[in-house]
Amino acid sequence: MATHKILLLPGDGIGPEVAAEVAKVLAWFTRAGIARFETETDLVGGAAIDAHGVPLSEAAMDRAKAADAVLFGAVGGPKWAGVPYAKRPEAGLLRLRKDLGLFANLRPAICYPALADASALKRELVEGLDIVIVRELTGGVYFGEPKEIVTLEDGQKRAIDTQVYTTGEIERIAAVAFDLARKRRNKVASAEKHNVMKTGVLWKETVTKLHAEQYSDVGLEHVLADNCAMQLVRNPKQYDVLVTDNLFGDILSDVAAMLTGSLGMLPSASLGAVENGTRRALYEPVHGSAPDIAGQNLANPIAMIGSLAMALRYSFGLLEAADQLESAITRTLASGTRTRDIAGPGANAVGTTEMGDAIVREL
Amino acid sequence: MATHKILLLPGDGIGPEVAAEVAKVLAWFTRAGIARFETETDLVGGAAIDAHGVPLSEAAMDRAKAADAVLFGAVGGPKWAGVPYAKRPEAGLLRLRKDLGLFANLRPAICYPALADASALKRELVEGLDIVIVRELTGGVYFGEPKEIVTLEDGQKRAIDTQVYTTGEIERIAAVAFDLARKRRNKVASAEKHNVMKTGVLWKETVTKLHAEQYSDVGLEHVLADNCAMQLVRNPKQYDVLVTDNLFGDILSDVAAMLTGSLGMLPSASLGAVENGTRRALYEPVHGSAPDIAGQNLANPIAMIGSLAMALRYSFGLLEAADQLESAITRTLASGTRTRDIAGPGANAVGTTEMGDAIVREL
Ligand SMILES: CC(C)[C@H](C(=O)O)[C@@H](O)C(=O)O
Ligand SMILES: CC(C)[C@H](C(=O)O)[C@@H](O)C(=O)O
Repeated sequence: MATHKILLLPGDGIGPEVAAEVAKVLAWFTRAGIARFETETDLVGGAAIDAHGVPLSEAAMDRAKAADAVLFGAVGGPKWAGVPYAKRPEAGLLRLRKDLGLFANLRPAICYPALADASALKRELVEGLDIVIVRELTGGVYFGEPKEIVTLEDGQKRAIDTQVYTTGEIERIAAVAFDLARKRRNKVASAEKHNVMKTGVLWKETVTKLHAEQYSDVGLEHVLADNCAMQLVRNPKQYDVLVTDNLFGDILSDVAAMLTGSLGMLPSASLGAVENGTRRALYEPVHGSAPDIAGQNLANPIAMIGSLAMALRYSFGLLEAADQLESAITRTLASGTRTRDIAGPGANAVGTTEMGDAIVREL
Repeated sequence: MATHKILLLPGDGIGPEVAAEVAKVLAWFTRAGIARFETETDLVGGAAIDAHGVPLSEAAMDRAKAADAVLFGAVGGPKWAGVPYAKRPEAGLLRLRKDLGLFANLRPAICYPALADASALKRELVEGLDIVIVRELTGGVYFGEPKEIVTLEDGQKRAIDTQVYTTGEIERIAAVAFDLARKRRNKVASAEKHNVMKTGVLWKETVTKLHAEQYSDVGLEHVLADNCAMQLVRNPKQYDVLVTDNLFGDILSDVAAMLTGSLGMLPSASLGAVENGTRRALYEPVHGSAPDIAGQNLANPIAMIGSLAMALRYSFGLLEAADQLESAITRTLASGTRTRDIAGPGANAVGTTEMGDAIVREL
């Protein structure tokens, strides 16, 4: 039995609480003799700032490089609002994405039937919703240079961010989207702002060309990012796979996640290029660190446990174990077990640890 | 009686149809002796490209500068998809915004009670919704340089867009938001991505400082743009005035508009700085050119007629006439007159011209 090396980075806020439930699940798989994991835990974000003065230590970065998969909780919180820009908690996550080359961020937005009423949208618009946002994660305005604030002669400041994309960066993320669509409903929508951005012009042109040359069997639609945000609210089920850049992906994937009413349930995968049959990968819940409910046993651990299920499937090739874990989550929900975020008004809710225990019991 | 100089720029798609209904309303005000208008009409967008080879002629630009207010329809459509970037239809609108100095874009998102069921959101979440997005309109990634596509040595292309903001640009748009909030529910939310963008850092810092120095009586909340998009879907009524940059404003205002279920009903105002007691202004519907329904007498002219009401109020000081027009719209809706977009499934719908006529009758 192969040993799978996992780096667990719980981070801040509710991160450590939901990560603790993942550790329980990992322990169960080991006890059951289904897989062997070598799990290391390290600090990231505010927790790493407090301990080491930086949001990700070199040692943690080295461990991430050595791991088969990174399981990431969440970072940030008001405590670190005054930290200098280069050392803010988020910089730890951005460095992991960049230095591990995790250019493809897959964010499924699935509406669980049992939770359709938790959506802000009318039930019929979201029931059965199953879309994936494929977000470019190592380019665009997140990393382009110059990125600076300068003081002008008159005392004013001027801030600059630079959005950069090359043909190659766009091709490889579009290929991920087309490949994924082929295994699904075979439809890709590509979102940009070619009407005001040169990166949008290149994006649209490159996606169009790749489609014609290699993926003409897949349906392709181009949509302006502003209109796409509208369409996600109006009729999200029109989409299957939605590919977009780093910044639009940040916003559109959050809108899509919120539509499902299941924000606390949605995992995500950030993948690197395939090299020698393997690829670097980081798995994290779509939700953030939620400092307002941290430390109170209120957080929903399902997004984090679902992120482990994605790791089992995409990084470790443990397809059966992944199915097993996902169906344990489904059965737990079907039995009516709910954390507060999905309980509905007036209903009984369990805590983070109880939800984790219930899922382990179902396993 | 003063004469108010209006430049009407119908543009493309449904633009000319909805602009024709505005012309009817203007004619009524003149006939009734309530106001005197001198209305010129010119081309913009694709229509101007077809006629002059550019999306806005110098003559049209001069007329816009000479007008007290510009009433703008919509631009763009598949017909001009192949036009070079610098001459695309949208460039006409962007030039108007930039050269008239229209830095403040006010986009109210109001949910009309009679139309609450047309929203994708549950009725209780949107009924009574009344927020205004204050979008910075002449800066950011829309206009920053460099903005180009270069071909690299290896044949790849690299595209660049630059987001730039200065202290002064942020201060003046924030001041518009704070001033507006004081006349409303006295709350401003400011959206940026200070966790990944230097322009976000400067944005947050500048808004915070201006608030402390001049607007500490107004409630202020900072929100990350991705979270803001989520919150708009989850619980839009938490907001009053929402101020943000050009690109985030493009997306967030579209989300907010779509929430209301009244997209075809929402006007917007783009305002310049006050100089000698007057300010340049352009009024336009929030919806686009909708080429799919153009020329079929299907478009809802209310957003365009509502844009005229905003012009009456903000540019011409005709407050009573503005009230009169808005209450004519409300009465027309109350009487059950509906264009197709707001008719609800199975209900009878009138055309663009009939809706315009009905509003003029109510006047
Ligand atoms: C934490 C933050 C840097 C991050 C981002 O903006 O990418 C988050 O919002 C996300 O979507 O993963
Ligand atoms: C037409 C286009 C250039 C414009 C924009 O992106 O600003 C539109 O989407 C808007 O919001 O007014």
